[in-house]
Amino acid sequence: MIPRYSRPEMVAIWSPETRFRIWFEIEAYACDALAELGVIPKEAAKTIWEKGGAAKFDVEAIDEIERVTKHDVIAFLTHLSEFVGPDARFIHQGMTSSDVLDTCFAVQLTRASDILLADIDGLLAALKRRAFEHKDTVTVGRSHGIHAEPTTFGVKLAQAYAEFSRCRERLVHAREDIATCAISGAVGTFANIDPYVEEHVAKKLGLKPEPVSTQVIPRDRHAMFFTTLGVIASSIERLATEIRHLQRTEVLEAEEYFSPGQKGSSAMPHKRNPVLTENLTGLARMVRSFALPAMENVALWHERDISHSSVERMIGPDATVTLDFALSRLTSVIDRLLVYPDNMLKNMNKFRGLVHSQRVLLALTQAGVSREDAYRLVQRNAMKVWEQGADFLEELLADREVTSALPEADIREKFDLGYHTKHVDTIFKRVFGEA
Amino acid sequence: MIPRYSRPEMVAIWSPETRFRIWFEIEAYACDALAELGVIPKEAAKTIWEKGGAAKFDVEAIDEIERVTKHDVIAFLTHLSEFVGPDARFIHQGMTSSDVLDTCFAVQLTRASDILLADIDGLLAALKRRAFEHKDTVTVGRSHGIHAEPTTFGVKLAQAYAEFSRCRERLVHAREDIATCAISGAVGTFANIDPYVEEHVAKKLGLKPEPVSTQVIPRDRHAMFFTTLGVIASSIERLATEIRHLQRTEVLEAEEYFSPGQKGSSAMPHKRNPVLTENLTGLARMVRSFALPAMENVALWHERDISHSSVERMIGPDATVTLDFALSRLTSVIDRLLVYPDNMLKNMNKFRGLVHSQRVLLALTQAGVSREDAYRLVQRNAMKVWEQGADFLEELLADREVTSALPEADIREKFDLGYHTKHVDTIFKRVFGEA
Amino acid sequence: MIPRYSRPEMVAIWSPETRFRIWFEIEAYACDALAELGVIPKEAAKTIWEKGGAAKFDVEAIDEIERVTKHDVIAFLTHLSEFVGPDARFIHQGMTSSDVLDTCFAVQLTRASDILLADIDGLLAALKRRAFEHKDTVTVGRSHGIHAEPTTFGVKLAQAYAEFSRCRERLVHAREDIATCAISGAVGTFANIDPYVEEHVAKKLGLKPEPVSTQVIPRDRHAMFFTTLGVIASSIERLATEIRHLQRTEVLEAEEYFSPGQKGSSAMPHKRNPVLTENLTGLARMVRSFALPAMENVALWHERDISHSSVERMIGPDATVTLDFALSRLTSVIDRLLVYPDNMLKNMNKFRGLVHSQRVLLALTQAGVSREDAYRLVQRNAMKVWEQGADFLEELLADREVTSALPEADIREKFDLGYHTKHVDTIFKRVFGEA
Amino acid sequence: MIPRYSRPEMVAIWSPETRFRIWFEIEAYACDALAELGVIPKEAAKTIWEKGGAAKFDVEAIDEIERVTKHDVIAFLTHLSEFVGPDARFIHQGMTSSDVLDTCFAVQLTRASDILLADIDGLLAALKRRAFEHKDTVTVGRSHGIHAEPTTFGVKLAQAYAEFSRCRERLVHAREDIATCAISGAVGTFANIDPYVEEHVAKKLGLKPEPVSTQVIPRDRHAMFFTTLGVIASSIERLATEIRHLQRTEVLEAEEYFSPGQKGSSAMPHKRNPVLTENLTGLARMVRSFALPAMENVALWHERDISHSSVERMIGPDATVTLDFALSRLTSVIDRLLVYPDNMLKNMNKFRGLVHSQRVLLALTQAGVSREDAYRLVQRNAMKVWEQGADFLEELLADREVTSALPEADIREKFDLGYHTKHVDTIFKRVFGEA
Repeated sequence: MIPRYSRPEMVAIWSPETRFRIWFEIEAYACDALAELGVIPKEAAKTIWEKGGAAKFDVEAIDEIERVTKHDVIAFLTHLSEFVGPDARFIHQGMTSSDVLDTCFAVQLTRASDILLADIDGLLAALKRRAFEHKDTVTVGRSHGIHAEPTTFGVKLAQAYAEFSRCRERLVHAREDIATCAISGAVGTFANIDPYVEEHVAKKLGLKPEPVSTQVIPRDRHAMFFTTLGVIASSIERLATEIRHLQRTEVLEAEEYFSPGQKGSSAMPHKRNPVLTENLTGLARMVRSFALPAMENVALWHERDISHSSVERMIGPDATVTLDFALSRLTSVIDRLLVYPDNMLKNMNKFRGLVHSQRVLLALTQAGVSREDAYRLVQRNAMKVWEQGADFLEELLADREVTSALPEADIREKFDLGYHTKHVDTIFKRVFGEA
Repeated sequence: MIPRYSRPEMVAIWSPETRFRIWFEIEAYACDALAELGVIPKEAAKTIWEKGGAAKFDVEAIDEIERVTKHDVIAFLTHLSEFVGPDARFIHQGMTSSDVLDTCFAVQLTRASDILLADIDGLLAALKRRAFEHKDTVTVGRSHGIHAEPTTFGVKLAQAYAEFSRCRERLVHAREDIATCAISGAVGTFANIDPYVEEHVAKKLGLKPEPVSTQVIPRDRHAMFFTTLGVIASSIERLATEIRHLQRTEVLEAEEYFSPGQKGSSAMPHKRNPVLTENLTGLARMVRSFALPAMENVALWHERDISHSSVERMIGPDATVTLDFALSRLTSVIDRLLVYPDNMLKNMNKFRGLVHSQRVLLALTQAGVSREDAYRLVQRNAMKVWEQGADFLEELLADREVTSALPEADIREKFDLGYHTKHVDTIFKRVFGEA
Repeated sequence: MIPRYSRPEMVAIWSPETRFRIWFEIEAYACDALAELGVIPKEAAKTIWEKGGAAKFDVEAIDEIERVTKHDVIAFLTHLSEFVGPDARFIHQGMTSSDVLDTCFAVQLTRASDILLADIDGLLAALKRRAFEHKDTVTVGRSHGIHAEPTTFGVKLAQAYAEFSRCRERLVHAREDIATCAISGAVGTFANIDPYVEEHVAKKLGLKPEPVSTQVIPRDRHAMFFTTLGVIASSIERLATEIRHLQRTEVLEAEEYFSPGQKGSSAMPHKRNPVLTENLTGLARMVRSFALPAMENVALWHERDISHSSVERMIGPDATVTLDFALSRLTSVIDRLLVYPDNMLKNMNKFRGLVHSQRVLLALTQAGVSREDAYRLVQRNAMKVWEQGADFLEELLADREVTSALPEADIREKFDLGYHTKHVDTIFKRVFGEA
Repeated sequence: MIPRYSRPEMVAIWSPETRFRIWFEIEAYACDALAELGVIPKEAAKTIWEKGGAAKFDVEAIDEIERVTKHDVIAFLTHLSEFVGPDARFIHQGMTSSDVLDTCFAVQLTRASDILLADIDGLLAALKRRAFEHKDTVTVGRSHGIHAEPTTFGVKLAQAYAEFSRCRERLVHAREDIATCAISGAVGTFANIDPYVEEHVAKKLGLKPEPVSTQVIPRDRHAMFFTTLGVIASSIERLATEIRHLQRTEVLEAEEYFSPGQKGSSAMPHKRNPVLTENLTGLARMVRSFALPAMENVALWHERDISHSSVERMIGPDATVTLDFALSRLTSVIDRLLVYPDNMLKNMNKFRGLVHSQRVLLALTQAGVSREDAYRLVQRNAMKVWEQGADFLEELLADREVTSALPEADIREKFDLGYHTKHVDTIFKRVFGEA
């Protein structure tokens, strides 16, 4: 997470101020429950909310205490007690620092998820708008970077829409996975704290109680969360790569918006480069890489060790802030993407008629030619187009073996572009529920 | 995937014979639908099932053809046509090889998932049985590898049970994600094949139609699948690590079953090593590593390229076969685990009474001592136990500052073991629905 | 490692037969040294070489013994003793199985390295030949996939040559790193075996003695080895990606050789796809992924655990076999690459004159225009070329602000192609030592 | 990189101020060479050094310009020109922004390497000191976490010393790999800038000229650099894991220094946890993860794309700062490690005499018993020690089959501890060159 690739709303989730506020709320809600159970005085719980709730925590001061205690939660509690006064001794009763840390992390990750879900919704909206705009914009479909058969630019965007819809669903699952609360005390036995406290705090924070924690919330949950972010990042890379390809000088079927005053190169003033999608490609690599330490974090020793902590202090902010930025940047790229339908047609016709080779193949087999022979016939004419720049239709019409199997009119009919787009509506209905 | 770490049922899914059989079925089901639509003769579809269904595909012969065509599906179709005869020209009409390959991969991965789900069920059963067996077997809970507070061995196993229940649910999601069928032709436009064919084949094979494919089934699905396997592997590593720790010479609270005739070391005949769980740790590293190329596979170029193929030819079998083997091995380890409750108690009492330090701390704060002072009082007595092997209770009773705050009887009461296990039933009910 | 992507010479290194032969040699060389030291009878060492050396080890039989002992080296020694007779008891004196396993692994990895080094040499030769062939073949250099300035195809290949020269040097380092021999007995103390034995065996096998082993050869060595393979794989991916780009339909400046009889697509007979380089891209992903478990293997517990073993049984063969295949395939791609200089020129001139924008910029600044103004002047004319297909030179000549700063002849002179290739010889001399 | 895990000297390398200063120096040195070549006025070069060298670059102002130009180097040059005045137009002549960025990155990485090398030297010194201190401190060697045979604590540290010596050498190689300078202009052809400029700047900055760049310095160099850091991090993890094991409550052979005032747990005042080495374990996971995007960065498109940039803006600082912090923390842990030789002996004798099993095995084979029988005899007595807590020597002496092969005195002699440490000097000489 570096300022260059960060947005303030997501960054705020990870600030010390936010963290301390969440810690306070966890402790204070726990006090409410403890007071209800008669473990601590009701008046104390009230005082804690009033004095602690009004406190402005001093990050520097807390850091100062931590330098002595070498324990962050103890440092915070010591600082908090200065505001609360003698009733502070009722705070954290029977709890362990992981109760606070892990539940806080759950709150932060669910908030981060909510922003990411909104990001995906924004991207989906942009993709849908542009997909319908270009539903009928014919372009060549490519496999292996080689012209295959016609499709439409709208279908390309529909594919991205479907992919990010899946990503959304995965993120919903991942959010559910990490949205648990643990207030179960040392080694998770509830020896010193009643399970009711956990239920109460969970409810107040919009989480579910962790069925069985071992002092910590088990890290398979977080592994699933961060690997899911890695998969979403990979989908971003896919769409970014598509745009980078389309903007290549020789292709130029689409282009990132180039703003007035923008400079593409310090040396070459003619340059207009797909720098945003290249940047997204790199950011995707980063988010993906965070999946690994998250998975390595799962095998904590016995009931818990603290090796996961340094990892999460880094990837918690890094993964969510970077993905938020990337989703938002991608949305803006899609929203403002310059699309060049004329170039799409020009490119498709570069090798004249070649994209219709399959239809001729199928027609030949339908006319009784074996698949192997039909393939050979079509391929030998197609190669002349590749190698000598010939016109495919003309070559076919001049090939006796072809014309003896298929009448000329039938051959010509196979070069109809509309044939390839007749199911675009079907696809749109499947993806968007409408066409 | 190497024989040493493979089980036959999972290996069979990935054999050439199985693959060709699935390819055949995809083609034959597609022919049924094409015949229904009147695209090919009904009789042809029947012949294809009869002659192709009875054929014994010759893997060597197909490989031989591929050496010329450099295309696996074409090689197969050529071979198939030798069995089917002239009607073979009706096979693969309007389809592209990815329709066959990707749908086949989906069938293989769903079958693999079913085996893995059964594996997890077996593991869950073993964990549940041993958890209830040791529900009340008291053992020390450890954080940072250091004694913390008492828990039971059953609670440890309940934690593993809960973790693998989550893994099961994740695998169900992952299975759903890859269980789609694409029969959409070149670049996925259905230009040469009616969407009905896809629906028919999907239904017959227990898959869902891919809403929008681009010749290939999008690889974000597979990325999610293989990262999910990586997370499951990480959970295996966690449990394996726990057992390795428990078997350490100084701990020896549990031990892998050591069979008659087994030798632990070529040099040292006294050795009994946790080799199975160490092996599981290594296997987990492998399964986890496959998540990466799976994520890198997502960003195929344009409608598709073939870079994913070599990766999937390797990780398809490797990840599923290795995980199947690992789950099965772990189940057997749990099933036959030797558990030593006496050693558990002996270890817990190594530092006499130390595990009760929190209770004394809480009692002091309840008695009006500030949290900071209480901590200091308890810590100074605890350190004597660590450093000089003293008895914690005796030290506390000899500490005037402590006894002036708490009567002796109260202090003694804090050393009751039962206090720590009183919520084991609650935990079991949460995890197993029963206690 | 799957047959499809394997070459026999490398596969042979990893066969059980090879492994058992190396094990035998390690034991027999150790016996020579032990006999020299008087620990075992000279006659016994002789018998071991004679009878063991002539033995044909039965892999199945050894596996059968292992099923009982659950220990591979013990199974082998038991089998070996059947050939050697009573003198077999002198084998493995004071050694531990890791001495055999780790030293054998070192022998296998050094042999694998030698093949890989030869592979790289082959690739370098191909790159050099084609680089000199196309030293003066002008083509456009591209940054961001966008035309930048002219270069030559030979320079592109020189870059690849330099990169693989570095890879070669890295592999030499990596080979050195793993070429050590450990015969140090249990926990590496030489308690039961004199260090001389290690020195002797190391010398015979072309290895260096491991300065301090802990029963195992430390795994940081292997981590360095496999990460180095991952970097080499990444360089393969770079060159493969370049070729994939050059073969795109709209670019078509180079093309993988397409053999007679080859079929590019089951559906579209016109297709010629860069399937080899796409395949290399996927293989690179695999080799790269093996770096991870290799790094995770480093932190073995205490003197050693066996978690590394399952990983190495898989990645030892997988990484070396796959990389060998990939290097060989890449060499063949380069050797037979079809290069289209005419298309290179045609592409370069697609946006007429645009590639000369920097020279005009520099000339303007040289003529006294500020950098900011010069940039603005050049950019505004360049944009007309991008957007309206104008001719860059004509636009400049029609721009008063430009011509007032630079005489027409000077502007025209900036469009000289030769200007860009004047240092090609310098570059070739740096890379190849000749031009 | 987060403040918690950062040290100021390394952080300073990555500050905007440092970066802009290096950019300036690259530009100014290039001007010197250009002036020498007569391309720009000598006076201009002098002015640039004087006015630019005295300038205090305003990071905020530069960022402001970048928001318009969307190009960081152009923003900097614009800002610089305000200080330099009209001569600023001679800056950056014939250069491209990558010349500045990549050469600057090389300078930053070499400076970072120098700090890391000093860190390793510090760690080596600490390891050596403690190794000699504990050269003869007998402790049990463990394989699989199970007691094996005696060794000394000094030998353990010697192993770590040897490992970090290798890491040091690898880092020297890695530093060399990235210490190159590219001043070759757009697409690296030197069209607009003489190779002499590159040579001059390289020399001034302590770098070597990049033999052939393609506008960018090839990223295989950086991949090798960051993977090397990943391997070093893995070695840190190994040593950290060893200490975590030794500090386990049941082992307690060594312990991280616990400072006065430190608190191990908010709930349990008795706790002393190995939090520093656990923290190092997590940091190692992070540094290791950065190897991946670094390898994915290699395959830039054509002469270059900018996808590597966002990755490097993150991992450049993150990897070096985190590794610097980790090495320094590990050094401090080793320096102050509390070592408990008494506990080491107590642990070794936990299973009475078991660690001598191999010697008895060897003695039996020497006495003519077959290896298989000897193994059986020793194992059956050893198992009584494991399972019933018997004394190994007594059991052997009571076993007729054993005593009939070996006289009692011979058996007793096998229990001599000194036998195992007789080669410690040899090992120390190998590792440290002295003993």
